[in-house]
Amino acid sequence: MSLIDLLFGRPLPSDKEGEQRIGVAAGIPIFGLDALGSAAYGPEAALTVLLPLGVLGLNYAVPITASIIVLLTIVYFSYRQTIAAYPTGGGSYTVARFNLGARGALLAAAALMIDYLLNVAVGISTGVGALISALPSLQPFTLRLCLVILLVLTIVNLRGVRESGLVFMAPTYLFVACLLTAIIWGMLKVFISGGHPAPVVAPPKLHQSVTGVSFWLLIKAFSSGCTAMTGVEAVSNGVEAFRESRVRTAQRTLTAIIALLILMLLGIAYLARTYNIGATEPGQSGYESILSQLIGAVSGKGIFYYISIGSILLVLAFSANTSFADFPRLCRAVAQHGYLPYGFVVKGRRLVYSFGVYSLAALSALLLILFGGVTDRLIPLFAIGAFLSFTLSQAGMVVHWRKNEGPHSKKKLAINALGATATGLTVVVVVVAKFKEGAWITLVMVPALLLLMGAIRRHYHDVALEVASPSPLELDERIQPIVVVPIEEWNRVAKKALRFAMTISDHVEALHIDSGEESELLQKQWCEWVSESARKHNLSDPRLVVLQSPYRMVVNPIVDYVIQLEKDNPGREIAVVISELVERHWYQVLLHNQRARVLTALLTRNGDQRIIVVNVPWYFNRPGSSPGRLQTAKFQTLSR
Amino acid sequence: MSLIDLLFGRPLPSDKEGEQRIGVAAGIPIFGLDALGSAAYGPEAALTVLLPLGVLGLNYAVPITASIIVLLTIVYFSYRQTIAAYPTGGGSYTVARFNLGARGALLAAAALMIDYLLNVAVGISTGVGALISALPSLQPFTLRLCLVILLVLTIVNLRGVRESGLVFMAPTYLFVACLLTAIIWGMLKVFISGGHPAPVVAPPKLHQSVTGVSFWLLIKAFSSGCTAMTGVEAVSNGVEAFRESRVRTAQRTLTAIIALLILMLLGIAYLARTYNIGATEPGQSGYESILSQLIGAVSGKGIFYYISIGSILLVLAFSANTSFADFPRLCRAVAQHGYLPYGFVVKGRRLVYSFGVYSLAALSALLLILFGGVTDRLIPLFAIGAFLSFTLSQAGMVVHWRKNEGPHSKKKLAINALGATATGLTVVVVVVAKFKEGAWITLVMVPALLLLMGAIRRHYHDVALEVASPSPLELDERIQPIVVVPIEEWNRVAKKALRFAMTISDHVEALHIDSGEESELLQKQWCEWVSESARKHNLSDPRLVVLQSPYRMVVNPIVDYVIQLEKDNPGREIAVVISELVERHWYQVLLHNQRARVLTALLTRNGDQRIIVVNVPWYFNRPGSSPGRLQTAKFQTLSR
Repeated sequence: MSLIDLLFGRPLPSDKEGEQRIGVAAGIPIFGLDALGSAAYGPEAALTVLLPLGVLGLNYAVPITASIIVLLTIVYFSYRQTIAAYPTGGGSYTVARFNLGARGALLAAAALMIDYLLNVAVGISTGVGALISALPSLQPFTLRLCLVILLVLTIVNLRGVRESGLVFMAPTYLFVACLLTAIIWGMLKVFISGGHPAPVVAPPKLHQSVTGVSFWLLIKAFSSGCTAMTGVEAVSNGVEAFRESRVRTAQRTLTAIIALLILMLLGIAYLARTYNIGATEPGQSGYESILSQLIGAVSGKGIFYYISIGSILLVLAFSANTSFADFPRLCRAVAQHGYLPYGFVVKGRRLVYSFGVYSLAALSALLLILFGGVTDRLIPLFAIGAFLSFTLSQAGMVVHWRKNEGPHSKKKLAINALGATATGLTVVVVVVAKFKEGAWITLVMVPALLLLMGAIRRHYHDVALEVASPSPLELDERIQPIVVVPIEEWNRVAKKALRFAMTISDHVEALHIDSGEESELLQKQWCEWVSESARKHNLSDPRLVVLQSPYRMVVNPIVDYVIQLEKDNPGREIAVVISELVERHWYQVLLHNQRARVLTALLTRNGDQRIIVVNVPWYFNRPGSSPGRLQTAKFQTLSR
Repeated sequence: MSLIDLLFGRPLPSDKEGEQRIGVAAGIPIFGLDALGSAAYGPEAALTVLLPLGVLGLNYAVPITASIIVLLTIVYFSYRQTIAAYPTGGGSYTVARFNLGARGALLAAAALMIDYLLNVAVGISTGVGALISALPSLQPFTLRLCLVILLVLTIVNLRGVRESGLVFMAPTYLFVACLLTAIIWGMLKVFISGGHPAPVVAPPKLHQSVTGVSFWLLIKAFSSGCTAMTGVEAVSNGVEAFRESRVRTAQRTLTAIIALLILMLLGIAYLARTYNIGATEPGQSGYESILSQLIGAVSGKGIFYYISIGSILLVLAFSANTSFADFPRLCRAVAQHGYLPYGFVVKGRRLVYSFGVYSLAALSALLLILFGGVTDRLIPLFAIGAFLSFTLSQAGMVVHWRKNEGPHSKKKLAINALGATATGLTVVVVVVAKFKEGAWITLVMVPALLLLMGAIRRHYHDVALEVASPSPLELDERIQPIVVVPIEEWNRVAKKALRFAMTISDHVEALHIDSGEESELLQKQWCEWVSESARKHNLSDPRLVVLQSPYRMVVNPIVDYVIQLEKDNPGREIAVVISELVERHWYQVLLHNQRARVLTALLTRNGDQRIIVVNVPWYFNRPGSSPGRLQTAKFQTLSR
């Protein structure tokens, strides 16, 4: 157990839950990594769409960013209200559940799950992709690097939510500090130079525009830029993880994250315009990311540049962690209502919902392996999930304020309605603009998930109905079971099983598969040592049934016999007593046939309500196992 | 099951064993592939050692081949006698077992096992190696090709011994036919040309000798050439597989194999000398195998050449099949005496010893993967295993003739003594000549295997001693077990388990892990529905024990409680009744926690002699599962 403890930490008792709660400083990296990290790819995504416009495109960078920031601000105020209204964790799912009913809630859940899953795969592979564009010699190890990062994230998250905050704190704050320093530094240069700063390292020249500007192009740029907003809902989802007073702490964390994000987005857009920095064609030689150009232009490519790039890589790769913090909580909430397997509800040894962490890790690993660690094509997909869940959450809040009228409920309703409308429109825009590029996949996956969750819920319901029995224990017909004991040869193990069988019932049958000479010996021994012994003690004589097996199968004839016996004896339970030799070391398992296990498995699979399997173990060479008898046995055997 | 049937064939009943018996025509490919295939590498190995002698070396090709053929003839007569003396399969192991005792037999077994295992790896990789020297573009797929061939061999062999004969018949006879045609063709040309034939495609020129001839060099060439003799023992090992009269059929098969081998070896040596064909440096550019040069010189590189080369590749790759035919039989014989796991004795669905086939396949796959599919360095090793087992077999036969004096026993003894001496000397020669090149590995592996087999035998012996009990069933103290029933909530599943528990004993305890509100409900229900019901039927009232679990573990507290209960009640058996929901489809397993299985496993691992596990399954939604009750249940639940 010590290796497990070392990796995942010692198990935590339930009453230590309070100590695992987090404050603002830890909350920002845990729930904000995703949102903050998107500053590194949101502007880039928007500017890439504007590429055909050349220099002209830069004129639209600031207005597009501004409209994204407006949307972001609306969403921020909406989520502030959500946090206050749902202090036990007001994720889109919970809010929708309370206000829009089960269907709306499941829709939100499906959208969010897809969002979180894609975020892990895309986050990790984008980070590794950035690393590889800096160190191209790592190219052949892309997938392996992705999987190693995924493994690290999984282990850290299995250790508990607080620990993951500590691990990701340093890179997150380094990233924010570097980016803000670069932005302020750049602003100062702009101010000193009177608006026309000279870049230290000049960014690649922007070509002349190829096409004219069109509304459609701007819409596409906007919808690409919206990826900068993914991850904003994370805080509202995880309010429960915060220190008391939860709501205040969570709200402050959200404020800090949004403020930092807005600052960074604005700064990037403004400096890109001033320094004439545009996107370069991705995947082609001469490609350089916006942030790399920007920091290079402001500070030159010295130590500061490399530290900044390093922190960007880390934050991108670790932005997947936000999903790890939220996905298990979301699944738990859904599972509590019976729409996902019950395992998601159980807290593991470190008070995290381990099953959720495992599932997310497994699914992301699958995605990464399927795409060979290069998931560029998945990027458009996950903004849809995010905005769909935003919309449902805001819409739910609108209903909430209608039901719960209070001092400022009219104003609050208005804010949330604005949020719902804005994000709802964005969903439509993104779906339309990105339909061919993959948005349709989300439109397929969401209904599929909904169907799956519905099926799970129905199954649980059926089981509960079948199993429920709010009535007293019926004890009228307590007939002893028929006990069947498969026996290979006459020995201590068989005797133990037989003795137990005769203790629990008067109707015992021993089964033996015919194997020639030995079987004749056994039949002789039976008459002498069992039948007589039973007669002496006035017990009913257990029958020895010898089965033929033309295919040398040992297990199947026993299973067939037992099932026939059950049919022939309606109303009676059939207990099959299986003796098993348990070895002290795992490798000793190889030395014995696994018939006991195979028989147990087959009886369980093919059996029916009235067949019960009893495992009587014989522990070989256990210190405590009756040494006196052992001596006798040795003596007897040797003197045979 | 249909896919399995398609791959491995339908299961065969034991009385169909006769139909699986083989004649001479099938016996040659099954037991002779190894021996015949070695004609392709034996002469090559000898001539490669003679490389430093240049043209001069060819003078020694014929005498070296002649001495190998003399040895082969001695061994042939010896094995003919062995087959007659041991018609149930006179492998080296059996002969040594009867005549030299257990130690000698195990030594022979260890040597043979190593021989067989290496033969699989080397055979496959040599075949693939030859294929790759013809089609260099396949180079990157070396290992994968090796593993595919191994897989094919494994599947074919799991289908049964007769099927494998049919599969390998065509390539074997094609190989023999091609080689003999080339030899006769060549001989005719020599005869017509008066001893100086002109090669159609001239073999590479042989250089002048670099060193003088030395006795040591000739010894090394001889010991390398001895690899041509591996596989000769196969027939004697598998006499049991032949059609009646077994001995005659087996002897005829052996005669045919040896005659063909001698013809081919002689022909190759003679033609190599006449056409001035020597070995070329392996692994260097311009390398061409002896057989390729020879067939090219005789026939030119036309269709006949390519068919011949193709058949050589197939025979080399499939020569591994001989190991598949013999290894499982050998392991079975050793396992019958308790020196290997019992699984080797059991015949599988197609009457082959499946466990042996699996083991050989797994170990060879491991070797191939470890060496990346290139096993040149293993070649010297496996002649040692073969000759060591030859020697032990002949030595055993010497003892046999001493014990069983008969009409010609003196003469027979002399033949076997000659064989033992000759092969024994060869072992010494090969070990000395090849010590540095890897022979030492065999000298390490053989004792390691001997130790392992000894340990297995001792373990079985200990188990047998502990378990043996040739005495009547003791029925004096039949005390009812204490029955423990873990219960999660009050439902039909719990009731079934509880009712069964109360049927088999009067002392029942229910265990429940505290989970807050639900537990209080359960305690209330218990008083009302269990205690009262028991009182009404004049039964002892089962106790409900509620356990606390600070770490949210559900399984461990139950295990701890049961183990403590066993300690507190010496002499009584503790039966733990575990109820389990069995779903109809495998994927439904994901929907339920696996507590029942984990609990069963932990109780078996940590338990002791007196702890017995009872699995009471609840089959969800089984057609036959009391529909009447189901209806009631639904009604009751809905009306709650």
